[in-house]
Amino acid sequence: MAWALGESDKEHFAWLYREDIDVAKKLVNEAIAEKLYIGALVSSNTFCSADLGCSVGPNTFIAVENIIEAVKLKYQSQSPASKIPEFQVFFNDHTSNDFNFLFTSLPKDREYYAAGLPGSFHCRIFPEVSLHIVHASSSIHWLSRVPKEVMNKNSPAWNGGRIHYTNSGDEVIRAYKAQYDEDTDRFLQARAHEVVLGGLMLLIFSSIPKGTLHSQPLGNIFFNLLGSCLMDVAKKGIICEEKVDSFNIPYYVPTPEEFQAAVERNGCFSIERKENARGVFVSKNLPNAHIFASHLRAGMEGRLKQHFGGDITDELFNLYHKKVEEMVPFMLESGKRMDLFVVLKRKADISPLVP
Amino acid sequence: MAWALGESDKEHFAWLYREDIDVAKKLVNEAIAEKLYIGALVSSNTFCSADLGCSVGPNTFIAVENIIEAVKLKYQSQSPASKIPEFQVFFNDHTSNDFNFLFTSLPKDREYYAAGLPGSFHCRIFPEVSLHIVHASSSIHWLSRVPKEVMNKNSPAWNGGRIHYTNSGDEVIRAYKAQYDEDTDRFLQARAHEVVLGGLMLLIFSSIPKGTLHSQPLGNIFFNLLGSCLMDVAKKGIICEEKVDSFNIPYYVPTPEEFQAAVERNGCFSIERKENARGVFVSKNLPNAHIFASHLRAGMEGRLKQHFGGDITDELFNLYHKKVEEMVPFMLESGKRMDLFVVLKRKADISPLVP
Repeated sequence: MAWALGESDKEHFAWLYREDIDVAKKLVNEAIAEKLYIGALVSSNTFCSADLGCSVGPNTFIAVENIIEAVKLKYQSQSPASKIPEFQVFFNDHTSNDFNFLFTSLPKDREYYAAGLPGSFHCRIFPEVSLHIVHASSSIHWLSRVPKEVMNKNSPAWNGGRIHYTNSGDEVIRAYKAQYDEDTDRFLQARAHEVVLGGLMLLIFSSIPKGTLHSQPLGNIFFNLLGSCLMDVAKKGIICEEKVDSFNIPYYVPTPEEFQAAVERNGCFSIERKENARGVFVSKNLPNAHIFASHLRAGMEGRLKQHFGGDITDELFNLYHKKVEEMVPFMLESGKRMDLFVVLKRKADISPLVP
Repeated sequence: MAWALGESDKEHFAWLYREDIDVAKKLVNEAIAEKLYIGALVSSNTFCSADLGCSVGPNTFIAVENIIEAVKLKYQSQSPASKIPEFQVFFNDHTSNDFNFLFTSLPKDREYYAAGLPGSFHCRIFPEVSLHIVHASSSIHWLSRVPKEVMNKNSPAWNGGRIHYTNSGDEVIRAYKAQYDEDTDRFLQARAHEVVLGGLMLLIFSSIPKGTLHSQPLGNIFFNLLGSCLMDVAKKGIICEEKVDSFNIPYYVPTPEEFQAAVERNGCFSIERKENARGVFVSKNLPNAHIFASHLRAGMEGRLKQHFGGDITDELFNLYHKKVEEMVPFMLESGKRMDLFVVLKRKADISPLVP
């Protein structure tokens, strides 16, 4: 089968994204209008924003332009006498991101000074007190690494025969959760240094309501299916099972309470807003299996080729496509898709404890 | 012949660069020690530098580390009670630069926050009053474009049969000079907005003493030889002469006086220092023809392939290698190589006129 998306698939896909973007836009606009206090910021000539986990566009450009428009409106309404500042935007992603492509795609008519910033957002990547708004969409549910225990055959948290915690035992889930907590603590600690007092963080990430089974979030379902396809390929002798055992996906879907607990441990940010950016999954929004498979393939192919070699991917994704089709009734009945939108404000009177 | 540099060539080449780097390092250290006034800068948490025309490293990393060391020393000596600031470094080059390679090459133990900044330094690329030190080495002698007249058959400045002004008539030289003036004015105007009051620009670029023939600077000799090789290839019928006519190299070697005149026209910078970074060329430093040819090929191959197609490059550079060998006696006798090192300081009481 052809793996490229056809025109109707693309339209469907674009429509799904469009809806996501429109919802995010509305939430970001409201957050800036209600929660950004210009008074604390007007002393600066330059308003600095960062998009963390920006990938290569165009979504990052849409998000950034929206933020700038909302900040301009806020200046005009709250401080009409003050000069609108200049805008500088930092596009951040891992060093392996294709920044060359990102840079050639930058909108020609942009109203900001653009810079690329390579490096993990789990570390300090900006100078102290230098960012007014931090935006991160669909990025902070990715972990900095796979928890070591799940790939250790001698650990009770060994995740043999699986590539994700979706259907795993408690020990595996605890290992993923511990890594999530560690990473989120590091993320918040780094940003506590970098965000100006009164500055905002606008975060959109996958989440599940407390009490939801880990086998229900759509992302988890997809990773679990991919794992079972890899095991099928292994059983045919095309790859060895140990290769599957040593491949895990560093992705954790927290509950709102788990994220909130991290913010409270950190202590430098107040939670100004926390709500669903997208409700429980509804059937009208369920794309067809081909779109799901193509989407996952686009996102995972590089990683899979690196680990397993390039020969298995066609066979793997044909299998995957079939399994997704079989799962559609379950997804319609039990699958959950929730993105949490959280607005954090850097508190004025708290210093981060750790440098 | 093989175009890769052999080990002894590489050593010779590295030695030449080493010497350039050591000279530049000494000049930059002196300039920062003598001309940077920390008092005006300590209010900022972050010390921001930019390397304009950084290419892909490693020279840019060496230059940047040297600047940071010198600034730290200056803080310690001039303002021992003040906290050493954090450093942020912007690596700038054209959007077509390989930033992916640059980012993966960033020193792991760097003491600064790194960002890549794509775009022409002839335009505004940074926010107002945001840079403390600007460094540009071997970049500002490149023009933003080839002057249009030299490729217009109906213009008196038409440069038919040549790819550079080295041996051209006065009209061609005037067209190049006009483009240089326009570009340097735009460069200084943009930086006048971006550099903080009291901030420094450390510029190293090719220059010729007033009264030197345009056929004497080594860079010009090389471009002229390359042009004559292209005409030889055209005369063999492998490419057409019109292709050569429409290929010109946007590179201008100014006199110190020409650069100084641009600084005076601009009015926002004082010239704190202006001296040869490298004296008139001496025989001990003349690499062999193979190194010259390989160096030029490395720098020009992409541009040549894009304009002429890929088939001619081996033949072209074999010819070029022979011609360089023939020219060695002339180069030893008359060739000039001078790099000018200029330190500019942003004056405190002048606003740029143009936005």
